[in-house]
Amino acid sequence: MTIKLYDLAGQDDDCRFSPHCWRVRMALAHKGLGYESIPWRFTEKDAIAFSGQGQVPVLVDDDTTASDSWRIAEYLEEAYPDKPALFEGPQARAHALFVKNWTERALHPAMIRVILLDLFAKLHEKDKAYFRESREKRFGTTLEAFAGNQPAQVAALRQVIVPLRVTIDHQPYLGGDSPSFADFIVFGAFQWARAVSPARLLEADDPVHAWRGRLLQAYDGLAGNAKGFPV
Amino acid sequence: MTIKLYDLAGQDDDCRFSPHCWRVRMALAHKGLGYESIPWRFTEKDAIAFSGQGQVPVLVDDDTTASDSWRIAEYLEEAYPDKPALFEGPQARAHALFVKNWTERALHPAMIRVILLDLFAKLHEKDKAYFRESREKRFGTTLEAFAGNQPAQVAALRQVIVPLRVTIDHQPYLGGDSPSFADFIVFGAFQWARAVSPARLLEADDPVHAWRGRLLQAYDGLAGNAKGFPV
Repeated sequence: MTIKLYDLAGQDDDCRFSPHCWRVRMALAHKGLGYESIPWRFTEKDAIAFSGQGQVPVLVDDDTTASDSWRIAEYLEEAYPDKPALFEGPQARAHALFVKNWTERALHPAMIRVILLDLFAKLHEKDKAYFRESREKRFGTTLEAFAGNQPAQVAALRQVIVPLRVTIDHQPYLGGDSPSFADFIVFGAFQWARAVSPARLLEADDPVHAWRGRLLQAYDGLAGNAKGFPV
Repeated sequence: MTIKLYDLAGQDDDCRFSPHCWRVRMALAHKGLGYESIPWRFTEKDAIAFSGQGQVPVLVDDDTTASDSWRIAEYLEEAYPDKPALFEGPQARAHALFVKNWTERALHPAMIRVILLDLFAKLHEKDKAYFRESREKRFGTTLEAFAGNQPAQVAALRQVIVPLRVTIDHQPYLGGDSPSFADFIVFGAFQWARAVSPARLLEADDPVHAWRGRLLQAYDGLAGNAKGFPV
């Protein structure tokens, strides 16, 4: 059976912006696993109700259904131990969990303020009311007020990624000489932006720019060939 | 030959507050390596001039001199491969480098604002002028102005450590089921505070509090028995 991946899409089927789904797409490519990609919108809760929750990514592999990108990565490691590893071992995975939590608690909050209005514009029409209502409730203010001034938010983002920058200036990937799932987690945030926003996140001489470039080109240009803005 | 470690001290020889030296002390304990600890002050540059630079930790092991806590950890791994590992492998080490850079670029800047004036009070008299001058140049303002309001700085610190908190809520150590050098790097920041400041950094129900407690007790209570304030 072919693996199926439910992947968040915008107005256009090929606008794939979920940072969490990008982690899984990169992981599947890293493992060399083919899959059928199913575009999904925020309001299509019924389509993934079988997974027991309401968010993507959802991966279906034969009898197994997995949701949450981290659990999907753990599933892929377990189910395909002979394919290239996402984690070199338990300690590498444990350390990667810190990278995940930094990404979700520091990088994503900085990134969403940069791209929020661009992202909103790219949503499928049927998702816009849901997105606005759920996010404005979460943010405690309107999308427009939360986003604020984009150049200032870009400057803030560039400060937040200092630990990433210093690390990538020392080694090609967070995983060392080759990418690990930690790279895909952080890279997902940049693909989120690239899919929806023309904002220039990184200066050309930023080591993070070069790292992103390596991952855009990886796996036959999977990420770089995806629909999005030039970076 | 016994390993020698030059370790930053305050007015009292047993006030050991360097976060970078604590990384090495925990690493030596983890590896079960004995050593002679030599108290050192900021202005004693001559005493470590043989290392080719002016900061501690400096570790001397037979013919080898190593400085910089990360390089010392790499040296110990290489020189004592049969002792308990600080890194499970290259990818675990690569990921730990991100933890190091987060610690130095996000955690330390938040921590120093909490403890700066308490730390200054604990310095050896001969170090105070050097410390004030060098730090005020670095901070671009007086120590007092940079430190500001301690309760506000504690609140900011608690926000910065969210990625640590979420990770430690999921697994006992950053390294997983047992501590890695990544744990010692982050823990060093808390020992820096504990040695000099009575500030209450963490609520008792914070998972980081429990994690710190485990490391305070580790290796026969090496860190917990060191001179410092109750936490």
